[in-house]
Amino acid sequence: MSDDQIPLADPPFDAAESDDARHRERMAKKKVVRDRMLASKATAKGLLVVHTGTGKGKSTAAFGMVLRCIGHGFPVAIVQFVKGAKTTAERDFLEGFPDLVTIRAMGEGFTWETQDRERDIASARKAWEVAKGFLADPTLHMVVLDEINIVLRYGYLEVAEVIDAVTARPAGQHAVLTGRNAPEALIEAADLVTEMKMIKHPFRAGIGPQPGVEF
Amino acid sequence: MSDDQIPLADPPFDAAESDDARHRERMAKKKVVRDRMLASKATAKGLLVVHTGTGKGKSTAAFGMVLRCIGHGFPVAIVQFVKGAKTTAERDFLEGFPDLVTIRAMGEGFTWETQDRERDIASARKAWEVAKGFLADPTLHMVVLDEINIVLRYGYLEVAEVIDAVTARPAGQHAVLTGRNAPEALIEAADLVTEMKMIKHPFRAGIGPQPGVEF
Repeated sequence: MSDDQIPLADPPFDAAESDDARHRERMAKKKVVRDRMLASKATAKGLLVVHTGTGKGKSTAAFGMVLRCIGHGFPVAIVQFVKGAKTTAERDFLEGFPDLVTIRAMGEGFTWETQDRERDIASARKAWEVAKGFLADPTLHMVVLDEINIVLRYGYLEVAEVIDAVTARPAGQHAVLTGRNAPEALIEAADLVTEMKMIKHPFRAGIGPQPGVEF
Repeated sequence: MSDDQIPLADPPFDAAESDDARHRERMAKKKVVRDRMLASKATAKGLLVVHTGTGKGKSTAAFGMVLRCIGHGFPVAIVQFVKGAKTTAERDFLEGFPDLVTIRAMGEGFTWETQDRERDIASARKAWEVAKGFLADPTLHMVVLDEINIVLRYGYLEVAEVIDAVTARPAGQHAVLTGRNAPEALIEAADLVTEMKMIKHPFRAGIGPQPGVEF
């Protein structure tokens, strides 16, 4: 059970609380409410998950979920819409699990790297064709479309086409779409949306990307 | 290069833009600014990273960074302050890399599970002693203190004591502290802070925790 799993608002908290009996009683009540809530939930359902916002952790949390899937022995596919040929630690690592993980890095860098709109559109389409294949594959427990929101924002793919394919995926399959500026229609369609909000970023303090953190 | 690495605000974007030359020029300018920014950064520095907020992805993104470290061959230690005996897919998985990853799940569940304040304080202290050992170990590239913010919020550990130990860690070591309600003093001390903000949560729609996503 992780902290991430508490959708309920915290009760008002009195830091000076010293009455253990009161604490116990409050916590017992919280447990009843929580157990009842969890018991009422349906069990297996493929979620449409969106990680957006300008903060860090969107792709990283998707990789954390991939790690959980590998731990369960569930097959996963990942399409990277922006990352390309250049290898990364996460890709190196995931390629060590060829029975469970398929990872296709099909980008050619950010659009300010390629500086060629036609080429960007062509590479986005190519990646999307591969993604559609994964979204139609009922053997996959999870499909990660990494940075697809960027491609959608620049209009390199049609939002409606992506939502249609994602919505039509097998019922038990989780789809995780990452990248800043997720389109409103995608947020509407999603089951779980987290905005990674930048509170403090080391680049602003003159600190560059760190291996193990950023790549 | 990941989307997470763009601290700059996006330029105004015209979806109908059809002038490829203008696009190329704009992107070329963006590239110059970005390359200059990256070139100006110092290279190796251990970051103090905080993942907070009520949304999902705080621990998950920390596990994504652990995965990157393993990909690089960097040793990592993880102390879980809330998760305990019950095994999880991520722990199962990480225990498969005993040369690189040390994971100690030292919690006894959330405080509304144990309903015993004294026991919670004792288990938090025990976990903290282990964490201090890791924070003093210069061979570790990254130390993850999972859900420590929860323990801090309930006053089971002193914020000042934690900040002192974290600040005194070896210069090249990354420390990643997760959990909602990160104390203000910790945010002040951190290099990188992301708030995971809940936009939509499937529990609210009657959907329970899913293997591979939540655990």
